[in-house]
Amino acid sequence: MSDAEASLHKVVIVGGGFGGLYAAKELGKVSSVQVTLVDRRNFHLFQPLLYQVATGTLSPADISSPLRGILSRSRNTTVLMDEVVDIDPQQQKVKMQGQELTYDTLILATGVSHHYFGNDQWKTTAPGLKTVEDALEMRRRIFMAFEAAEKETDPAKRQAWLTFVIVGGGPTGVELAGAIAELAFNTLKRDFRNIDTTEAKIILLEGMDRILPPYAPELSAKAAEALTQLGVTVQTKTLVTNIQDNTVTAKQGDQIQQIPARTILWAAGVKASGIGKVLADRTGVALDRVGRVMVEPDLSIAGHPNIFVIGDLANYTHQGDKPLPGVAPVAMQEGQFVAKLIKARSQNQPDPTFHYNDAGSLAVIGQNKAVADLNKVKLWGPVAWFVWVFAHIFYLIEYDNKLIVMLQWGWNYFTRNRGARLITGEESLVQVEMDANGDFRTSSDRKSTVEV
Amino acid sequence: MSDAEASLHKVVIVGGGFGGLYAAKELGKVSSVQVTLVDRRNFHLFQPLLYQVATGTLSPADISSPLRGILSRSRNTTVLMDEVVDIDPQQQKVKMQGQELTYDTLILATGVSHHYFGNDQWKTTAPGLKTVEDALEMRRRIFMAFEAAEKETDPAKRQAWLTFVIVGGGPTGVELAGAIAELAFNTLKRDFRNIDTTEAKIILLEGMDRILPPYAPELSAKAAEALTQLGVTVQTKTLVTNIQDNTVTAKQGDQIQQIPARTILWAAGVKASGIGKVLADRTGVALDRVGRVMVEPDLSIAGHPNIFVIGDLANYTHQGDKPLPGVAPVAMQEGQFVAKLIKARSQNQPDPTFHYNDAGSLAVIGQNKAVADLNKVKLWGPVAWFVWVFAHIFYLIEYDNKLIVMLQWGWNYFTRNRGARLITGEESLVQVEMDANGDFRTSSDRKSTVEV
Repeated sequence: MSDAEASLHKVVIVGGGFGGLYAAKELGKVSSVQVTLVDRRNFHLFQPLLYQVATGTLSPADISSPLRGILSRSRNTTVLMDEVVDIDPQQQKVKMQGQELTYDTLILATGVSHHYFGNDQWKTTAPGLKTVEDALEMRRRIFMAFEAAEKETDPAKRQAWLTFVIVGGGPTGVELAGAIAELAFNTLKRDFRNIDTTEAKIILLEGMDRILPPYAPELSAKAAEALTQLGVTVQTKTLVTNIQDNTVTAKQGDQIQQIPARTILWAAGVKASGIGKVLADRTGVALDRVGRVMVEPDLSIAGHPNIFVIGDLANYTHQGDKPLPGVAPVAMQEGQFVAKLIKARSQNQPDPTFHYNDAGSLAVIGQNKAVADLNKVKLWGPVAWFVWVFAHIFYLIEYDNKLIVMLQWGWNYFTRNRGARLITGEESLVQVEMDANGDFRTSSDRKSTVEV
Repeated sequence: MSDAEASLHKVVIVGGGFGGLYAAKELGKVSSVQVTLVDRRNFHLFQPLLYQVATGTLSPADISSPLRGILSRSRNTTVLMDEVVDIDPQQQKVKMQGQELTYDTLILATGVSHHYFGNDQWKTTAPGLKTVEDALEMRRRIFMAFEAAEKETDPAKRQAWLTFVIVGGGPTGVELAGAIAELAFNTLKRDFRNIDTTEAKIILLEGMDRILPPYAPELSAKAAEALTQLGVTVQTKTLVTNIQDNTVTAKQGDQIQQIPARTILWAAGVKASGIGKVLADRTGVALDRVGRVMVEPDLSIAGHPNIFVIGDLANYTHQGDKPLPGVAPVAMQEGQFVAKLIKARSQNQPDPTFHYNDAGSLAVIGQNKAVADLNKVKLWGPVAWFVWVFAHIFYLIEYDNKLIVMLQWGWNYFTRNRGARLITGEESLVQVEMDANGDFRTSSDRKSTVEV
């Protein structure tokens, strides 16, 4: 290391999601700092479109960009593919799998993972959607279910293969339910000979009294109406009390319901990644109920002005009456803000003040069907859908060749096709088989057995 | 089953590659037959472009099409995702994992897999390229090697991570070597901070006296020249005698060479899929040295005029002085021929005669670099490259949305970018780690340990 480099202010960013990446992009322009971005993966994932991978519209690479590629022109920035396992705030060090890094300023942006509310045994039966691998596993299960149904002769068992339960009526649950309905009732309609895919049941379960709870009530109603039109059964005020033996037990008031379903998808809860707990142990910072780090108005943590937590991992309660939501725009703005703060401090200028600029929320239900809560303006139907498409294209275009995604959408829009409905993965060569009881099993059943 | 259906001529096709699919497409137009296509996968794979998945240019879905989708309009055709495990020529039945099918005519088109010439222990260290999973595994290893090199401080060990050995100088080996050279010397050049990716060694080993042996000698020379220009070390007359401890042992004449390399890719040999052996056991048909089925001039097998073997699984010696090569055009023409033969017989017309119409061979080396052996015309350089691009687009366009591939290529051509260089898969979250000896290991090392 040269003397010039040694004197630079060292910023370590942990996590290359929206928060970490936007901090890195901003700091890449600041010559007085030296940046290291650490991520377990070698790519940034555009998570809002992950459900389109899970349902066979897009490929993982369509919504991912190699971090090194995005940051290759930031000559002050090093990308490390590694995992941070510990933090030492006294020595100002982070410990990774094989090496240590010292920092002057640390930015933690490691996000959240699924949360099963104490029922981790549901995980293998009802996978969640956070990573590329999660999405490919969902895709495999969804399309394998139709294959199994095609072979099954017992009507009740066949219906269980054709039943898709989505737990959680937030944006991800709504988007998954809508996309699976379009698959069953449209894309796959002519593809099978023994089953009628339009006999599929797609059931969306939500614990609150309406889907998309953070949206304006009239948009929740519009979304529920659009889903119902697509053929989705929307059940609100419904709590899942058990998932076992290919059956979902749901409770709506006093009524207990047993839903036989071979495909159960989890879109209900998140918990903070483990590094939040490590940080709390090392600094005494408070965590919220799901493990998110309580941050100060400037996104640093109490007593440690050089440690920042941003994105889904942070609980920011200094604006509005509840924490800022775990969505991409919050993470991006927080990342950019912290970068600007570091720049201001390095130039001995006064700290800027963070204020989240809420442009609104968007959720897509299906082709031409979406809801947009732009605060003063509420949109739904084709208008909201086009707003959604253009908002996403606007962000995706920042990353290399993602213009292709727009063309893919355009093509899909006119052909109503889904070209990426492949069943892949190590176990995908093992087809649906009949077991000793005469029941059909897929490799996902077997996989669960192995993993549990 | 209705009486009308029962009286139809039942054709069972095993395998949805080029041979099986083209037979099915042709038979889909013949109303007097009832077709069942059985494949272990739910998609057709455009294998000639698989190396572009392995090297991060295309996604699996870009070169795959769901079989049900391709054949959905053939109302006389049923697609079954299953694996044929036995054949009963007397009863005219094929046995699958969970059910049986009876046939009047059987078409076997299950292709080939890798062949390690009796050294199956090399398989985990030197994976081959036949399936989507193979390609993603190669992609993971190639990009993980650069990540490991970036962390390694020992120069010799770093060079081993930056050394890529491709065994076999046929079209796949040549295409892989060229694509990896373009990655190292171009695409990734600015992405790393500790390593200079242009120090990578890409070594192509071929046992014969020239690469691309089936091509005209002047084209082999042009291909070698183009690879050398790209920075690939081409070694002919070189036999691999051992692969062990991250070292390839190669023999060129009397000279023994030890090449330390962490990424070794196998493009050397193929053997017929197991169903050929089953067929030989049940019918007595002869197999060749690599297990391919010796077929009659009409692609049926001796003594069984209603069993046909086509594509890579067949050894057809009735035209020219050696067997027809294992390439897509041969399989496609054989599939179409057998379909026409079945149609002619069903209409009591005389059998047509098979003649392979050889339009030539094409292999791509890199951008603007290819060789085309169009029999009377030999092309190389940009002209051959454009012929290659248009020939592939011509075939790909038959499948739903693969026009996108052309656009992706166009974009890559002008930007020299590769957007699909993701490290994914179950083990991809486990990064390069230092082991007890201070050596870096990747998850592929560990995986090999588990699998061996």
